Amino acid sequence: MTTLLTLNCTLLLGALAWGQTPPQLNLMPMPSTVQAGSGQVLIEQSFSVAVTGFHDASLERGIRTFEARLSRQTGIPFRPSAAKSGATLTIHADHGREAVQKAGEDESYELAVAESGAKLTAPTPLGILHGLETFLQLVQTTPNGFAVPAVAIKDQPRFPWRGLLIDVSRHFIPLDVLKRNLDGMAAVKMNVLHWHLSDDQGFRVESKKFPRLHEMGSEGLYYTQDEIREFIAYAHDRGIRVVPEFDTPGHSRSWFAGYPELASGPGPFTLETASAESVTDPTREETYNFLDKFIGEMARLFPDAYFHIGGDEVNGKYWDANPKIQAFKQAHGMKTNQDLQAYYDQRLQKILAKHHKTMIGWDEILHPDLPKSIVVQSWRGQASLATAAKQGYSGLLSHGYYLDLMWPAARHYAVDPMSDAAATLSPEEKKSILGGEACMWAEWVTPENIDSHIWPRNAAIAERLWSPQEVTDVDSMYARMNAVSLDLEWLGLTHRSARMHMLHRMAGAEDISALRTLADVVEPEKDYTRWDESKGGIDFHAPLNRMIDAVYPESDVARRFGSLVQAYIQSGYKDQASEAQIRAMLTAWRDNDAKLHALLQQSFLLQETAPLSEDLSALGVAGLQALDALAKGEPPAESWRAQQLTLVERARTGKADLFLMIVAPVKQLIDASASPAKSN
Amino acid sequence: MTTLLTLNCTLLLGALAWGQTPPQLNLMPMPSTVQAGSGQVLIEQSFSVAVTGFHDASLERGIRTFEARLSRQTGIPFRPSAAKSGATLTIHADHGREAVQKAGEDESYELAVAESGAKLTAPTPLGILHGLETFLQLVQTTPNGFAVPAVAIKDQPRFPWRGLLIDVSRHFIPLDVLKRNLDGMAAVKMNVLHWHLSDDQGFRVESKKFPRLHEMGSEGLYYTQDEIREFIAYAHDRGIRVVPEFDTPGHSRSWFAGYPELASGPGPFTLETASAESVTDPTREETYNFLDKFIGEMARLFPDAYFHIGGDEVNGKYWDANPKIQAFKQAHGMKTNQDLQAYYDQRLQKILAKHHKTMIGWDEILHPDLPKSIVVQSWRGQASLATAAKQGYSGLLSHGYYLDLMWPAARHYAVDPMSDAAATLSPEEKKSILGGEACMWAEWVTPENIDSHIWPRNAAIAERLWSPQEVTDVDSMYARMNAVSLDLEWLGLTHRSARMHMLHRMAGAEDISALRTLADVVEPEKDYTRWDESKGGIDFHAPLNRMIDAVYPESDVARRFGSLVQAYIQSGYKDQASEAQIRAMLTAWRDNDAKLHALLQQSFLLQETAPLSEDLSALGVAGLQALDALAKGEPPAESWRAQQLTLVERARTGKADLFLMIVAPVKQLIDASASPAKSN
Repeated sequence: MTTLLTLNCTLLLGALAWGQTPPQLNLMPMPSTVQAGSGQVLIEQSFSVAVTGFHDASLERGIRTFEARLSRQTGIPFRPSAAKSGATLTIHADHGREAVQKAGEDESYELAVAESGAKLTAPTPLGILHGLETFLQLVQTTPNGFAVPAVAIKDQPRFPWRGLLIDVSRHFIPLDVLKRNLDGMAAVKMNVLHWHLSDDQGFRVESKKFPRLHEMGSEGLYYTQDEIREFIAYAHDRGIRVVPEFDTPGHSRSWFAGYPELASGPGPFTLETASAESVTDPTREETYNFLDKFIGEMARLFPDAYFHIGGDEVNGKYWDANPKIQAFKQAHGMKTNQDLQAYYDQRLQKILAKHHKTMIGWDEILHPDLPKSIVVQSWRGQASLATAAKQGYSGLLSHGYYLDLMWPAARHYAVDPMSDAAATLSPEEKKSILGGEACMWAEWVTPENIDSHIWPRNAAIAERLWSPQEVTDVDSMYARMNAVSLDLEWLGLTHRSARMHMLHRMAGAEDISALRTLADVVEPEKDYTRWDESKGGIDFHAPLNRMIDAVYPESDVARRFGSLVQAYIQSGYKDQASEAQIRAMLTAWRDNDAKLHALLQQSFLLQETAPLSEDLSALGVAGLQALDALAKGEPPAESWRAQQLTLVERARTGKADLFLMIVAPVKQLIDASASPAKSN
Repeated sequence: MTTLLTLNCTLLLGALAWGQTPPQLNLMPMPSTVQAGSGQVLIEQSFSVAVTGFHDASLERGIRTFEARLSRQTGIPFRPSAAKSGATLTIHADHGREAVQKAGEDESYELAVAESGAKLTAPTPLGILHGLETFLQLVQTTPNGFAVPAVAIKDQPRFPWRGLLIDVSRHFIPLDVLKRNLDGMAAVKMNVLHWHLSDDQGFRVESKKFPRLHEMGSEGLYYTQDEIREFIAYAHDRGIRVVPEFDTPGHSRSWFAGYPELASGPGPFTLETASAESVTDPTREETYNFLDKFIGEMARLFPDAYFHIGGDEVNGKYWDANPKIQAFKQAHGMKTNQDLQAYYDQRLQKILAKHHKTMIGWDEILHPDLPKSIVVQSWRGQASLATAAKQGYSGLLSHGYYLDLMWPAARHYAVDPMSDAAATLSPEEKKSILGGEACMWAEWVTPENIDSHIWPRNAAIAERLWSPQEVTDVDSMYARMNAVSLDLEWLGLTHRSARMHMLHRMAGAEDISALRTLADVVEPEKDYTRWDESKGGIDFHAPLNRMIDAVYPESDVARRFGSLVQAYIQSGYKDQASEAQIRAMLTAWRDNDAKLHALLQQSFLLQETAPLSEDLSALGVAGLQALDALAKGEPPAESWRAQQLTLVERARTGKADLFLMIVAPVKQLIDASASPAKSN
């Protein structure tokens, strides 16, 4: 018996033989359709793969990588020389994929698992790669062995463009770190790495035509052209396109370090925050000669059809301050700096077209003088995207997907490229919304903690861009995201392990259990509140080794505590299982500061968190008193409640750029205890 | 004020400003002399290194590696371009080191740290490398920043040969895993990697002269000659010699897969356990022609002056079964197979001498016909070593240092190359004992868990071979070893993290806290009891993903519990701090099976551990009852005690090849509770 499962709730298989509680399918992103069967395929040492239909070296590499990962995940060394009588998994692709992966290329696949074996079919190896990731997510530990449940999956992406931007300018990110992030992207079926390769703080690509770009603009931290070619091949083998971004005419101080003549104002320019600032001079023909040669070189290096020129946040004051540029504007009848930028972008677009590239840029490049072929990436929102679409421009959504804002996964998950203004578009106009990109801006991340700022939250965005629009159940998303998060560790991602290393460093001690209890319930400052102009320029060479740099952007413990409190209150204080868990958590917090106090004082990196630890224990006490009152049904004195609310106000305030995320649910308990009958 | 500290107790600095309790110096191996000063040097972003005296590219690489590690350890990105006014650390080497590192080369160094800066001096960069490791171990997290305390260290090794054998035949270990182990060896000042490159189960080196060796003897898992050259250079940069071992005439089935004519008996030979067995035929001249060419090739590939030919465990039955070999023995007047092996070893030694190599072999090569230049590595013990020394042979101790026996660190630590029979040697004879080697035989390890089988216990052996003989305090050793263990994680070693991955795999779940509680108190079977002949041959392709493969060889939790029980009993049951900790641990164990039971049933890999989990909870109950009785001073009924001893007997029995290591201390509590007055 098979059942067609609905998509917007956690998938549970009812017909399986392996336990009292049927296991959840931890698929993320959720496929288009999933039909559960009965039975399972065991993954044993005899596991084998057979390929029928199309076959090439890239598919072969994909299968070898898959086998190695399955081996790592299960601890079973498959025998390379084992005889293959009746393969466990049969793979069939109809024909080959594009030599250079195209936006919109068919990515669909079908995966059928039955007792007799699994069959994965797809039009091209691109779909096969996605299906292999699905297969890996299906592998479960059961009483009888590692197994994949019988299931029939038909799957294809909702949007053709599902990207992750990684900024390697503000902090250089080495290729091994990027590669493991490509592995993570492939695991959640993202297909575009948007490589933000230059900005004020660093120019990260070797240029043979203009070597002073990387020599003077990178402090020695750049990728060679050979490395880039190898990296692009690595991405291609994982079904991922690499789109380069060279931001211009703003965000380009690093270009000017070696080529100050490109700037609108006087230097000298260095990578330091204290250096002179400027933007590119769009009035000199030499600028376009430079760009033509440079883009020609980069167009050969990066095979993707798209080329990102940035174009965002151009500060017009540097143009205003240059009399020659003012004269140029006047001579050409330009009224605003926007007009001047449009002129620049048009020139750029022609150069790109000459080199067979399609231009992408941020919202600011949108101007009626630009051809409809360009793609607008929106950091402003769906309205901006809808405006572009109505004018016939293609677009990508990034507003709402900025990972550096430290939002919870659910908040990103709720952002849909087709919502708000975009929902009002005609079906034809909607086609021009190609998808979206998560953005990992690197002001506050290093190779050490970038993984934990991308993962696992990026998996929620990946699901938004791949899965049907109706897949929106947040509890299901969190359950599956947490499972995928564990899987990602097998790829070498350090989003969980790095925190432990960093806590050990701060503590300078082996036993960090109490420190971890504190770290588990705090979250960093949200949005861009960590820094403001009053603090001066950001020092991009400063150590990022504080608690704020170590903790997860989202506290899973606090989220679960909130859910428990919710369930307990909604039960009319009768849900004893929830109460017991709440009590255990509050007790641990109450007792934590006593364990932690001395350690915090002994470390210059931890001293700033001492008030947080004290607040946590105070909240534990308050929460337990409220819980006792609720359990007994005896409201506490009004004076007690007033005291507690003072505490809550104090605890709500950020300290050490961190927030205690259990304040709100503890307050709920306090409020409820004052008038328990109301909720009853 | 400075104080000369004694060496055989934990080092405490009395004169430091940074806290109520002076921090311990976590140096391992303990230097020859350590003199504490007052004050400290802060490690900040301005940290800089200046080199005076000798300077070459290898020293430069050593310093760059040191800086990168200091940066990782502190999270501080040092500025490559920072101006250097008054270096934090000044390095001075008198002259260069040998191009090919020699056994006995001067490894001494002096490190002086004062408020004004640190100075590291050594005869050669070899000592500098060791001193830089000491410096890294001195870095501490303090209330004022990362700091190195003022100290004056003069250091040199006790033995010139401090090795680690890694067997890459039984399970192939990739170079990246070996490299991080080289990093770990350098951190604890070991200076020889003994690379066990061939055995029955695999021949792991590319041979251009005899390509069927690696083609047919490795299942494709071997190192190319280019890789080996690069690896040896990597080791050299870390002050480590690489000594190759090609085991012959026994342990050599993998040679016969491609060259069956070398064997004493008929094949066919494969790498499988079920394959025909044999040993090399020492009677054919073709064998020596082969070995001459092969050793010539390998002598050029491996620059070290020593070459290990194995020579152990030669099974004479294969010679007895061959009439031609019997005839040869008779013709040459050889009475025993030992004589025949001595003939073979003599021929081998002449070939090695021709290629400018000194022969090393296991105990069995010791024979009066062999020249005094050979080195005997003893798996048999100090008596064997002493016998060799008296005959004028050099020796290395490995008996007592076999990491695969799963002994606790303290047991290895107690083994001294100069003890027992070796203690009776004359001073001159003692010089021929060059040191020792830890041995990581790879029957039961894979790239996934080899780190945890080597580390941190290998650090205790490293200390035995480097530090003065009087350094024997076990508590100090454990305290420092645990600190070093954390440091080793910064080198990428996975001795701690792999266990978590493996527990997650077995559990197939995110929350593994209860599973970890169980894993924390068990140890694997000791010695070679995991396997015996009755189980047939070991399948070297079988998965090693059970609990026994995941847990640490030594339970730190059980060791600490034992110490607490000891302290509590010795206090006459008055030590309340110990009692509280004992109670907390017993309570957690008592409650653990209830949390864990369902999880264990759902995983085929965990089911076998269910009885252990039940025993653990029962021991928790029994221990708490005993503790209550002791606290009240009321002996329990004799019937209760009898019941508990039945439980103890049951819990003492190994299950799933694991032992609960808290049985003995719980029994101590039970015994004590029956007659508390006795211990009072």
